Amino acid sequence: MTTGTLYHVNGDLVPASEATVSVDDRGFRYGDAAFETMRAYGGTIFAWDRHLERLESTCEALSLGHGLAPDDLRERVDETLAANDLADAYVRLSITRGVQPGKLTPRSEVDPTVVIYVESLPRGGRQGRPVWDDPATVRTVETRRIPDDALPASAKTHNYLNGILARTELRGTDADEALCLDTQNRVAEGATSNLFFVRDGVVHTPGLEGPVLPGITRGLVLELADEAGVPTRNGSYTLEEVYEAEEAFLTNRTWEVRPVDRIDDVEIGGGPLTDRLARLYDERVEAACYRAE
Amino acid sequence: MTTGTLYHVNGDLVPASEATVSVDDRGFRYGDAAFETMRAYGGTIFAWDRHLERLESTCEALSLGHGLAPDDLRERVDETLAANDLADAYVRLSITRGVQPGKLTPRSEVDPTVVIYVESLPRGGRQGRPVWDDPATVRTVETRRIPDDALPASAKTHNYLNGILARTELRGTDADEALCLDTQNRVAEGATSNLFFVRDGVVHTPGLEGPVLPGITRGLVLELADEAGVPTRNGSYTLEEVYEAEEAFLTNRTWEVRPVDRIDDVEIGGGPLTDRLARLYDERVEAACYRAE
Repeated sequence: MTTGTLYHVNGDLVPASEATVSVDDRGFRYGDAAFETMRAYGGTIFAWDRHLERLESTCEALSLGHGLAPDDLRERVDETLAANDLADAYVRLSITRGVQPGKLTPRSEVDPTVVIYVESLPRGGRQGRPVWDDPATVRTVETRRIPDDALPASAKTHNYLNGILARTELRGTDADEALCLDTQNRVAEGATSNLFFVRDGVVHTPGLEGPVLPGITRGLVLELADEAGVPTRNGSYTLEEVYEAEEAFLTNRTWEVRPVDRIDDVEIGGGPLTDRLARLYDERVEAACYRAE
Repeated sequence: MTTGTLYHVNGDLVPASEATVSVDDRGFRYGDAAFETMRAYGGTIFAWDRHLERLESTCEALSLGHGLAPDDLRERVDETLAANDLADAYVRLSITRGVQPGKLTPRSEVDPTVVIYVESLPRGGRQGRPVWDDPATVRTVETRRIPDDALPASAKTHNYLNGILARTELRGTDADEALCLDTQNRVAEGATSNLFFVRDGVVHTPGLEGPVLPGITRGLVLELADEAGVPTRNGSYTLEEVYEAEEAFLTNRTWEVRPVDRIDDVEIGGGPLTDRLARLYDERVEAACYRAE
């Protein structure tokens, strides 16, 4: 965080350096919390409705009835952006199950803890620069994605050690994203990103029947490809199939569409379809967030 | 927590109601933290060395080099017990990766956050009463234990949603512990306990080759059985094999040895071997913590 940044904690704007939660908060004790990572472009949260929908789906998976109205959450986010005078920003919204009596078993009555983090994040877009300096270098790791029947992959929670273990395996390599397989050795996703690859003009990505986060950027890219008449396929892939790709890219909120230069020892790189989808994505952002200009 | 309780946070004793961590602490953002649950009996932490060993093994699994000396940690625990004038207590020691620059990828240089929670917990023992009022009622849940290759079961971390989901499935039932299978449908463990069962005079428990926490109480019970000449077996079991048990019990730090009255619709109950192991456990606690009396 930058000195002077204000976070929003349980209804109050507080200096980031003084923003705290109780050590008894279940979000701290157990990672018992839902979150969303968003981007603001020109002061507007991009795809707010989709974030809200996924947040609700995470809370439902956790049986976390936070009782907060969507407008209330949106207001807190907007207040935080305004208080920090931020137009282009990274925004994280976390909702925890708060402090409850007893130990592990959660109670139905929830007094949630709501934290909004912001950080300046200049936009890329057609005129700007992407947040990443270079294409991603990807390495397959030993850590497997958690199967859906142990922890639903569609839930975005504060239980993020699986991704941390994956990233830790990259120490001493030149890779900046870890590619995880599932427990059946099918390609799942990156530690914080969804994987796409192009073969014979078709855009492929691991399907949601596997332990794959339904990334909002992922969903948008599939829609944009559809609209542009580019064939897409949600499938189940071995690593060898990915190695044979003509193009590959990663998506997440922060990176948007980021080309992959290499997976393990296989050079892949972006290419015409990656560039086209990145441009369509930028256009979508600009149409959504700069409509009034 | 009780009013007036003091926790130990990063070297300071603070009222529990004011004990906080930064919202940027990785323990909060990602559950990126190790912990141990211990018991103090008569002012002495039982089996401290084993807790310390497992804590180190968790930190190693997380590549979390906290840099704190064992004596330093022990001192903080003892200080907390003394400050709260507690002899018989529940003690939780958490070490997080603290606040770090950047996002998910952890840095090697760690400024850890250390929290010690205490709570009065009268001891059972041969003269006292157990912390549980009744034998446990257990129900098998749909939530599967996380496989070892996704998150090592031997690591005790703040990523506890798997157990929370398991416990949430008990809502509306009379069960007080959830029994989880692994992804191969073998019996693993309870949400916060290890399972034991007796058949033909042999004490069985799911082995550590499955996603099973190496519970310290579990390990002690196996040792005590061995010493008493009771045959034990660490195996891989189906639910049906457990249903045919003559006796069953759960172990964890808090419950010690707790008989199981029922698993799903099958009545089991404790019995002579459960009682014997519970008594041997009490004797071990008393020998370790009341030696000087």
